[in-house]
Amino acid sequence: MSGRRAALFDIDGTLVDSVYTHVAAWRDAFADNDLTLPHWEIHRRIGKDGGILVSELVEIADGDTGSDDLESRLSDAHDRFYSERSEGLTVLPGARDLVREAQRLGMVVVLATSAPDHELDLLRRLLDVDDLVDAVTSGADVETAKPDSTIVGIALDRAGVEAADAVMIGDATWDFVAASDRGVPGVGVLTGGVGRGELLQAGAGAVFRDAAEVIASGILGSGDRR
Amino acid sequence: MSGRRAALFDIDGTLVDSVYTHVAAWRDAFADNDLTLPHWEIHRRIGKDGGILVSELVEIADGDTGSDDLESRLSDAHDRFYSERSEGLTVLPGARDLVREAQRLGMVVVLATSAPDHELDLLRRLLDVDDLVDAVTSGADVETAKPDSTIVGIALDRAGVEAADAVMIGDATWDFVAASDRGVPGVGVLTGGVGRGELLQAGAGAVFRDAAEVIASGILGSGDRR
Repeated sequence: MSGRRAALFDIDGTLVDSVYTHVAAWRDAFADNDLTLPHWEIHRRIGKDGGILVSELVEIADGDTGSDDLESRLSDAHDRFYSERSEGLTVLPGARDLVREAQRLGMVVVLATSAPDHELDLLRRLLDVDDLVDAVTSGADVETAKPDSTIVGIALDRAGVEAADAVMIGDATWDFVAASDRGVPGVGVLTGGVGRGELLQAGAGAVFRDAAEVIASGILGSGDRR
Repeated sequence: MSGRRAALFDIDGTLVDSVYTHVAAWRDAFADNDLTLPHWEIHRRIGKDGGILVSELVEIADGDTGSDDLESRLSDAHDRFYSERSEGLTVLPGARDLVREAQRLGMVVVLATSAPDHELDLLRRLLDVDDLVDAVTSGADVETAKPDSTIVGIALDRAGVEAADAVMIGDATWDFVAASDRGVPGVGVLTGGVGRGELLQAGAGAVFRDAAEVIASGILGSGDRR
């Protein structure tokens, strides 16, 4: 173990304003297959493992458990619609500064996403913080993504720190379900459109408006008091 | 006073799945004017008076209070982008049944929205429940829409019932801030993508997943026990 602390960053909705783009892409993917889904049912599942997400949504839209073929067509359509909208993606205010702040504090910086590799490439190009990043995880690292906590375990391994010396910064309930399962403290942001109450209930220890407010709070540095 | 009870229905996000469409239309309207806005900042303001909404968003995006000219261009652009997307609007599951249930219970049924008339026309055509509706409000009835409670007062007047004999069914915090101000009990639904915690905090007395769950709860009929 390195004796250092680590910041585990979720990307979608935490550093990049992509949650609503995913919602729109899934809605269109279902419509493309003659299925109607309320937007909010999609929204609350963003950040969840893609396979689980699509199965749950098919059950809501179709009233049954769907088929592998339908789920595969929906995932492909989502990827196509998301890609079409990707030019409109923007980095969230203060996001790069927050990553820089973690590095300045001497923390090991990990992009702890389970986004598939083709999305991750896009997000990293947009974020442009690779020089500040020590390790990265992606969907390719695990069979099942959040809320399964395996991805958090891998992030801790790659950072070389114990759970109690890390902090997960995320915007989705799934981030904190996964982090809590491994004993990693969580800091939530509202930038994915999920409410404070839901994030606290899922296990976030503190919730801030956005990355800028996380920096201002000084909470990342507070572990230095150990 | 009629001696009857009344159901005051918000439309956007409560009966029609239009909140995310409004978010996308505002995001595009700002982008069209070279301004970037995080989606979540728009989302949490949907259902709020349009003039206040655009002023607050301009302040976030532009760092100043904007100008009447800019705000007017943004509103026009929103209307254009919203209209372009309006073919994709859908009625929320159970929404028509909920309106029918209110009528079946002998309640005065009011569509208590402050959407502008051109949006309201579209929503009413889509909803197709005019035969069940006793009264309607719109943005044209008031200078300032929710969270200002004037629109709730007008809805009560048109229904001819006292505040305590009415219930506001809505999806946005602004619905319950306005209803609470007039002493109208609130029933929240999650279909606008706003969390349970936020709705309760804004004054909703109970929160359900969606219209179907409101019907199943029997809460609309519970006032009959008086």
